[in-house]
Amino acid sequence: MKAAVLGTSGYTGQLLLRLLIGHPDVETIIPVSLSKEGEAIQDVDKSICLHALAKFELTGGRCVSLAQAQGLKPDVVFACLPHLKSGEVCACFLGQAVIIDLSADFRFRQAKDFSRAYGSPPPRPDLLSQAVYGLAEWYTEQIKMTDLIANPGCYTTASLLPLLPLAREGLIGQQPIIINALSGISGAGKKTEATYLFAERTENVSPYAPGTSHRHCAEIQAELSANGTEQRVFFNPHLVPMARGICATISVSLAREMTFNELLDLYKNYYGTKVFIGLREKGLPQTAEVWGTNRCDLGFHLEDNQFFIFAVIDNLVKGASGQAIQNMNLRFGLNETAGLAINRP
Amino acid sequence: MKAAVLGTSGYTGQLLLRLLIGHPDVETIIPVSLSKEGEAIQDVDKSICLHALAKFELTGGRCVSLAQAQGLKPDVVFACLPHLKSGEVCACFLGQAVIIDLSADFRFRQAKDFSRAYGSPPPRPDLLSQAVYGLAEWYTEQIKMTDLIANPGCYTTASLLPLLPLAREGLIGQQPIIINALSGISGAGKKTEATYLFAERTENVSPYAPGTSHRHCAEIQAELSANGTEQRVFFNPHLVPMARGICATISVSLAREMTFNELLDLYKNYYGTKVFIGLREKGLPQTAEVWGTNRCDLGFHLEDNQFFIFAVIDNLVKGASGQAIQNMNLRFGLNETAGLAINRP
Amino acid sequence: MKAAVLGTSGYTGQLLLRLLIGHPDVETIIPVSLSKEGEAIQDVDKSICLHALAKFELTGGRCVSLAQAQGLKPDVVFACLPHLKSGEVCACFLGQAVIIDLSADFRFRQAKDFSRAYGSPPPRPDLLSQAVYGLAEWYTEQIKMTDLIANPGCYTTASLLPLLPLAREGLIGQQPIIINALSGISGAGKKTEATYLFAERTENVSPYAPGTSHRHCAEIQAELSANGTEQRVFFNPHLVPMARGICATISVSLAREMTFNELLDLYKNYYGTKVFIGLREKGLPQTAEVWGTNRCDLGFHLEDNQFFIFAVIDNLVKGASGQAIQNMNLRFGLNETAGLAINRP
Amino acid sequence: MKAAVLGTSGYTGQLLLRLLIGHPDVETIIPVSLSKEGEAIQDVDKSICLHALAKFELTGGRCVSLAQAQGLKPDVVFACLPHLKSGEVCACFLGQAVIIDLSADFRFRQAKDFSRAYGSPPPRPDLLSQAVYGLAEWYTEQIKMTDLIANPGCYTTASLLPLLPLAREGLIGQQPIIINALSGISGAGKKTEATYLFAERTENVSPYAPGTSHRHCAEIQAELSANGTEQRVFFNPHLVPMARGICATISVSLAREMTFNELLDLYKNYYGTKVFIGLREKGLPQTAEVWGTNRCDLGFHLEDNQFFIFAVIDNLVKGASGQAIQNMNLRFGLNETAGLAINRP
Repeated sequence: MKAAVLGTSGYTGQLLLRLLIGHPDVETIIPVSLSKEGEAIQDVDKSICLHALAKFELTGGRCVSLAQAQGLKPDVVFACLPHLKSGEVCACFLGQAVIIDLSADFRFRQAKDFSRAYGSPPPRPDLLSQAVYGLAEWYTEQIKMTDLIANPGCYTTASLLPLLPLAREGLIGQQPIIINALSGISGAGKKTEATYLFAERTENVSPYAPGTSHRHCAEIQAELSANGTEQRVFFNPHLVPMARGICATISVSLAREMTFNELLDLYKNYYGTKVFIGLREKGLPQTAEVWGTNRCDLGFHLEDNQFFIFAVIDNLVKGASGQAIQNMNLRFGLNETAGLAINRP
Repeated sequence: MKAAVLGTSGYTGQLLLRLLIGHPDVETIIPVSLSKEGEAIQDVDKSICLHALAKFELTGGRCVSLAQAQGLKPDVVFACLPHLKSGEVCACFLGQAVIIDLSADFRFRQAKDFSRAYGSPPPRPDLLSQAVYGLAEWYTEQIKMTDLIANPGCYTTASLLPLLPLAREGLIGQQPIIINALSGISGAGKKTEATYLFAERTENVSPYAPGTSHRHCAEIQAELSANGTEQRVFFNPHLVPMARGICATISVSLAREMTFNELLDLYKNYYGTKVFIGLREKGLPQTAEVWGTNRCDLGFHLEDNQFFIFAVIDNLVKGASGQAIQNMNLRFGLNETAGLAINRP
Repeated sequence: MKAAVLGTSGYTGQLLLRLLIGHPDVETIIPVSLSKEGEAIQDVDKSICLHALAKFELTGGRCVSLAQAQGLKPDVVFACLPHLKSGEVCACFLGQAVIIDLSADFRFRQAKDFSRAYGSPPPRPDLLSQAVYGLAEWYTEQIKMTDLIANPGCYTTASLLPLLPLAREGLIGQQPIIINALSGISGAGKKTEATYLFAERTENVSPYAPGTSHRHCAEIQAELSANGTEQRVFFNPHLVPMARGICATISVSLAREMTFNELLDLYKNYYGTKVFIGLREKGLPQTAEVWGTNRCDLGFHLEDNQFFIFAVIDNLVKGASGQAIQNMNLRFGLNETAGLAINRP
Repeated sequence: MKAAVLGTSGYTGQLLLRLLIGHPDVETIIPVSLSKEGEAIQDVDKSICLHALAKFELTGGRCVSLAQAQGLKPDVVFACLPHLKSGEVCACFLGQAVIIDLSADFRFRQAKDFSRAYGSPPPRPDLLSQAVYGLAEWYTEQIKMTDLIANPGCYTTASLLPLLPLAREGLIGQQPIIINALSGISGAGKKTEATYLFAERTENVSPYAPGTSHRHCAEIQAELSANGTEQRVFFNPHLVPMARGICATISVSLAREMTFNELLDLYKNYYGTKVFIGLREKGLPQTAEVWGTNRCDLGFHLEDNQFFIFAVIDNLVKGASGQAIQNMNLRFGLNETAGLAINRP
């Protein structure tokens, strides 16, 4: 297989390069940079092992332009460009390769939902209807059949995986869902703003964009309401002083009385065979336990019909590049775990 | 003034020693150790400036026993011993000195509430009725008159300061209050357990003791229900990878419709003149902004009658030793800010 | 006293503002911004306590322009602007106020030494001869008499304080001095470059600018060679994942055989009465022990005529803003420790 | 292959379990605990993926006793027990399995060298002569032939890999070698001592055991002097606030004048084909770049015949469990990189 990666300077693009180097079914990697055509791969990411560049031979170990990449006919294209740009750029591969877009550009089924969250219409509204939302455990069958996968946001993945079993069964009660999410700083991308400097973030917890103001809240709401019912969701994100990891602590009032074991059975029913979902029957998960893996581990607490779910992921892996690989694996009929870690390093 | 500190090996006792060294109205410090009588103060805390030991002259720069401390007749005694022990030990100073106990032993008005939270009766149930809860901004007048102050817990301080204005005005609606609290690791004290090791905590967020299972939840509930109404509270604590700081993110459904400005006015009314309460009219506070200070800063977000309050403190200062000094200041008629930082270092 | 601070957006300028708020002898603070005239002080640094703005009344709580600041006739001016600019700008206060420049612009006695280190001549070579190097413990008497103080660099302070007693006594042998310095990330200033992002720095140690290539190496060498002897120095800085703190580990071959106690006595002779120098007779100091203080603590190890000195400071305090305050205190005959912490918070 | 791991509660034992789960040539893992026989593997390490326990079937997913492990006839035994105990315990597998001991018990060729460093004789001095020092790039051929491999210490690996090419060529001059090493906290093991608590280590750099007092200094010296010449080495270790990683900054005076390119060629000659050694022709390596990998990356700086080498490893991987796997791979003729990461996660 030949895999192209559009955008090689951010965290998700660089992690994809490293994951693809280790992927047993990928023989050729095509790094594509819009601005740094010709740059050597070891300058893109100085950490890459110089003894492991065989897969980059097709491009002479260098980044190529978009046009060059098209000429090299990749089987799969990962787009790691900024929102509003990614969808526009990667669309040129449609019909030629499977596209997995890590931006938000194809995540909403309705252009108006995208506009509300991002302040302007999606770059390619015409393609929204053919895109499949790449939440791998939920849209597995559709992912296998599509050529355009919209990889979900990190907060969204950490929120939907715990909530969808309840939502699909109609078990969420009247009170609004309250999600308190804690994220490592890489969740902001490699943005060179003062607020993300080490000296600003260490020994610091910062709540931000509360209520319904974060863009991922709209994405969560859109998916939870996919079957018609409007679900109220409040989402309070916080930056915590670590590089990677998300912990979503979710409060749900149940629509009817249930026991802890009934709830556990519900989750086992949905996720018991899913290799990347870790159900904790007792105790709560910690983000470090899934660091570097493509897992989402879930812990539970029930009290007086108030149900608390604790979900942890690595935002760069299951929340971005790892799930993108998982989607590639599903789409091409590969082993679902190929190239992905199930245990922390 | 002569100040004694019972317990010099934990974080709160050591911080008290350092705060008292810098306190303009304290002339003599008496460090008291139950196990390490005779130990030099610079061995208790290697960081203490050797040029700044003048206040320890009375004890020859060394820790003394409880009996010796009684003979030295301190004006104020800070008890920094473990729960169940602290109340028993410090009580011997009653009638002779003002006692400020940093443990939970005098925090509950009802012995049964203590028993439920701590698994055994408080060491001195006979003294509960004369203890004043040392939440300095709320029990100011009572603190000025008592000789037994029960310094509040750190999570409790970060939860009650934002909630009490609403509770006292009867503005909290039917839905349970949900508090998601994030704490630095020093909140656990200097416990030598594997789970608090650096290598276990860095790059790690850990929820624990969810719902109503944390002891501070009982303390919060007891204070919120002080005026008779039973208030449902769920409290989900999380350890985050920093040494100091608490961020409490609180969801409240309002009992009646209110505007953001009405709510802000309510808080200004209660706290506008309180030097250690920082009201943010816009934006949300970060824990680093109050690091090392005795402040509690509050930010707010209102949406659809759902009210979110974001409270930040330094758990060792406003959440423990700093508030203890503030209580001493109030009790002895000193400047309320004496010896306390209002800006981060 | 009236104190002006030029440059309010960097770490040293902001820390100076906070230190001056707490300084007992400063009544008025004049924040000066070249680009943000009119900005409210609480927007400059959101952490500043809103109840503590009385000292900013003269400027209406806002930043003023350079011209306005001149009109307000400060007694002392702290310049916290970038190298090459700072010296040019602050010189306008000469003759009117005492200037304490935190940049490198006046640190070298010879313009050519500056040029070699900074790649261009100093902005005001004409003033070099009247500037006093503000290493407070060494140039105390000169500082008291000058109106132009060149505050030393952070690495330089951590290197010279341990080395000068040996150098002044001619005790440094033939082998080159090797300094391995570890610095917290704030040492780089508030530079918004990708390399200083939290996600790049956490779990990361990075050596950089080795040998004689770091600018502070030139500053160290210049001071060590001040008495005529050319001293070879190699300086290997490393970024370590913390916000504040420097540990300089220094290897010196002694010019003649000495015992550990002789060396200790030498240091006691120089520093025994210096409140901000902490001599450890046994054990080695840690950076956390002086965090937030204006101290430099020193530990020692002698083996086979090879002498190792371990020096720790807080780079923003003793390495910058704190030493600047100390210099102000010395210059104006105030208590040397006024407004400065001697114990960590 | 069947692999047993003795000691499952420390960092190296647990990492070995996770590495072996992912190793393509290991079919069966036998976890052995001296104290916790019968404990389920998911209680040993809560992070282990519950879908990935197939390799533990032979022991029913549980830890077994030493006697049981012997009965199960492992092909290779990794001993992760404390010094002085490990060598005694694992020796019972001699003749039956290949032993890879991660303790110091077989690292010295001379019992007296061990005694000097560890304060008592090695547990099995009779076996020292048949043990091979497991520095994989240097004793490759011997490793392939032995049944007793002494896995090197972490500091030692980070020091010897950069120094041995110089030492073997006789290029190290008269001046003592000075190694300043910076280590993440996991280097201390999972010791529950107050000094390793998160709140003690964050924002803290601590030099310790300077000069020749650290045990690994003896190990380094023993190897460097293996060819007869006594080499003076000073080793100054520092704890820095991260979990994993070592940076060794080494100063060597060269025995004769050489150019940078001659030195680079020397290293290429020794290491050019070694997949786990990363030679940087320009720039210096950072610990994060090899985090989680089995690599040792080297950077260089030459000035005035003073040569500085900067070596980075992950102390738990190349410094312990990873090199142990590498040694197993070499010994059993497997792919040298099997089960090991060459790029960070």
